[in-house]
Amino acid sequence: MEVMNFLNEVTSRHPDAISFGPGRPYEGLFEVERIGLYLDAYKRHLTEDLGRTPDEVRTMLFQYGRTNGQIHDLVARTLRNDEGIDADPASLVVTVGCQEGMFITLRALFAEPSDVLLVSSPCYVGITGAARLLDIETAHVPEGENGLDPDVLRRTVDELRAAGKRPRALYVVPDFSNPTGTCLPLDTRHRLLGLAEEEDLLLLEDNPYGFFTRAGTGLPTLKALDNRQRVIYLGSFAKTCFPGARVGYVVADQQVQAPDGSRTLLADELSKIKGMVTVNTPALSQAVIAGMLLTHDFRLREANKPAADFYQGNLSVLLDSLERLLPRKRREAAGIHWNSPEGGFFLTLTLPVPADNALLEESARDHGVIWTPMSYFHPDGGGTHQMRLSLSYLTPDQVIEGARRLAGLLERSCL
Amino acid sequence: MEVMNFLNEVTSRHPDAISFGPGRPYEGLFEVERIGLYLDAYKRHLTEDLGRTPDEVRTMLFQYGRTNGQIHDLVARTLRNDEGIDADPASLVVTVGCQEGMFITLRALFAEPSDVLLVSSPCYVGITGAARLLDIETAHVPEGENGLDPDVLRRTVDELRAAGKRPRALYVVPDFSNPTGTCLPLDTRHRLLGLAEEEDLLLLEDNPYGFFTRAGTGLPTLKALDNRQRVIYLGSFAKTCFPGARVGYVVADQQVQAPDGSRTLLADELSKIKGMVTVNTPALSQAVIAGMLLTHDFRLREANKPAADFYQGNLSVLLDSLERLLPRKRREAAGIHWNSPEGGFFLTLTLPVPADNALLEESARDHGVIWTPMSYFHPDGGGTHQMRLSLSYLTPDQVIEGARRLAGLLERSCL
Repeated sequence: MEVMNFLNEVTSRHPDAISFGPGRPYEGLFEVERIGLYLDAYKRHLTEDLGRTPDEVRTMLFQYGRTNGQIHDLVARTLRNDEGIDADPASLVVTVGCQEGMFITLRALFAEPSDVLLVSSPCYVGITGAARLLDIETAHVPEGENGLDPDVLRRTVDELRAAGKRPRALYVVPDFSNPTGTCLPLDTRHRLLGLAEEEDLLLLEDNPYGFFTRAGTGLPTLKALDNRQRVIYLGSFAKTCFPGARVGYVVADQQVQAPDGSRTLLADELSKIKGMVTVNTPALSQAVIAGMLLTHDFRLREANKPAADFYQGNLSVLLDSLERLLPRKRREAAGIHWNSPEGGFFLTLTLPVPADNALLEESARDHGVIWTPMSYFHPDGGGTHQMRLSLSYLTPDQVIEGARRLAGLLERSCL
Repeated sequence: MEVMNFLNEVTSRHPDAISFGPGRPYEGLFEVERIGLYLDAYKRHLTEDLGRTPDEVRTMLFQYGRTNGQIHDLVARTLRNDEGIDADPASLVVTVGCQEGMFITLRALFAEPSDVLLVSSPCYVGITGAARLLDIETAHVPEGENGLDPDVLRRTVDELRAAGKRPRALYVVPDFSNPTGTCLPLDTRHRLLGLAEEEDLLLLEDNPYGFFTRAGTGLPTLKALDNRQRVIYLGSFAKTCFPGARVGYVVADQQVQAPDGSRTLLADELSKIKGMVTVNTPALSQAVIAGMLLTHDFRLREANKPAADFYQGNLSVLLDSLERLLPRKRREAAGIHWNSPEGGFFLTLTLPVPADNALLEESARDHGVIWTPMSYFHPDGGGTHQMRLSLSYLTPDQVIEGARRLAGLLERSCL
């Protein structure tokens, strides 16, 4: 996160700049009044559906709770409706956001100094930061235009093994990844699963953005395609409910060996670790998220239709504006291009000049527009000529004006 | 925590037994209806006291938040009133319970393989568990009758140094510690602070139980006595507000060297770590705790008067019952004794026979009473003939009946 400091600092010095920086969800769809309604919905569920007494409800809201969470069955039900993932509630661990899920999963899986975590490059900084905190070595698999390439992954695995390392797991965001916005084709998903089986790898699938695409489109998750328990699914409610709850979950249905030699669910091993990190996920947060799941009849994808429409709208507006301001011939001649994701929060813009802190400073100061240098997401160099544009936190009008300002910067520096 | 499994298992097999096991707060004082009132109090504070707009309030409740927390100034104000600790809000990190506070503090302080964490023996399992998760070596300082003995601590430090280790910090619960219930005398507190200064140790002071004693009694915390910034204060709202919020905090006002060589607050280093563990503490939990602080005019000690009276009542009932059932002469002849803490949730009962899992099983099955073997809290053996009795989770009537059953067990096994 240290590299983000410059971005934060530029942002605070230029409060009137339009920022394509933050990957935060749009706030216009949140309603403060609903918190109480969601809490009530969960209380009603406990009393009316489950027959809990008022004293038991009180205990569930105020007391220490089950380490792996108290809403795991409701989450499992939602996951079945939304993703076709059929997870035993016992294999779910409800976590303090997806970040804690990544953290405890890494701690559970990586035991030997020779164990290596594979990540794409560029990569979400939350996973590399967690690995660093746990002194876990990461190996970086450069992404192609369609994201992670199984052939490159296989080569990386071979090289690691030749060097005496054990590639243990691959972290991957198949849908509209942060930071690039790429989406893995179905064929790649199948190949990844095959490779995981052949090479005895686990896949850590992180899926915060999957809902935010055109209705009826979207590809099955790796976990939904997985019939060999190769995938550990890292779930997040930050974008599909709201970030302030800090509720995420892990589906960890793998059978593993416990320290005493017995067979146990990976979820139970995660539980032991979670107990020493946060004891349990706050009951209040779980209650509010449960209330949302109940209110939306365990169908979050449908409930997120307005949000998906909003983000899709911003994405269209941004792509259309860029297209209009920088017509194909002109930009291609100058070496400017961008990808066109079909969903998510991000896109990648490539320049003929370095998209570095100096250009960011100039962009904020002279053009009133902010973005994130893609190099921030490359664990070992790369992305020097790219920027990440995030469209999730702006109104459509801001996106239009931001695109205009960005075109101004490009006119000045690249054209 | 693994050792606790047997206790949990016995408890589930004997649901009608009275349990002196759980160190949970009593639930009779919680009221579900108050959650909404506390949330409202915080919202009013944001709008009326701080002039925040409705949109800003929405952001503070729903969005990602400041890594170190958004209620740090309110917590600092409460700490000033309740403990006379004058903490700069910038030195506070609001955490997901005290457990996360311990975890990130250990991660920040322990860098070298030779660094050793000192803990008392017996010791709270949350700290030893967190250390184990981070592969931090612990050294155990056996407690005397008055808890931690500075002379024994000094000897342990000397021995560690002679062995090439660096004793880095001591974890200590000065007030009514879990598991023994002992309270460090004022003189010991001063000696600990002196020793920390001489030996260049940090003191990790954990204080969940300090309020639960007779009004007007109680000793100053180490942090309140500390004028050399030797103490990192680990705060908890689990017992003084409620556990389900999972809100704690760390006061980390030490100047430290950042990785880039600059001087910085330890709190800022903790922030970088926390960002990779949980991103930030849930806004909802912080809002409800803030509402409680506001409602009680930043005086939690006073607000906890009914709770303190309740726990004090249970403590008296337990000590009186044991005294009546096992008069001094009789118990001393048999080698049974117990300590008489002036507050807190716990006391230590010593037997002439092993207080082990076999006795616990017999106790639950034949006498309908459950307790925790003290050996569970000894990281490297010891406490074999002691039990921890927790009085926090029972009604006074249950304490009386539990003491009667316990006396029955002792009659049978020791007298």
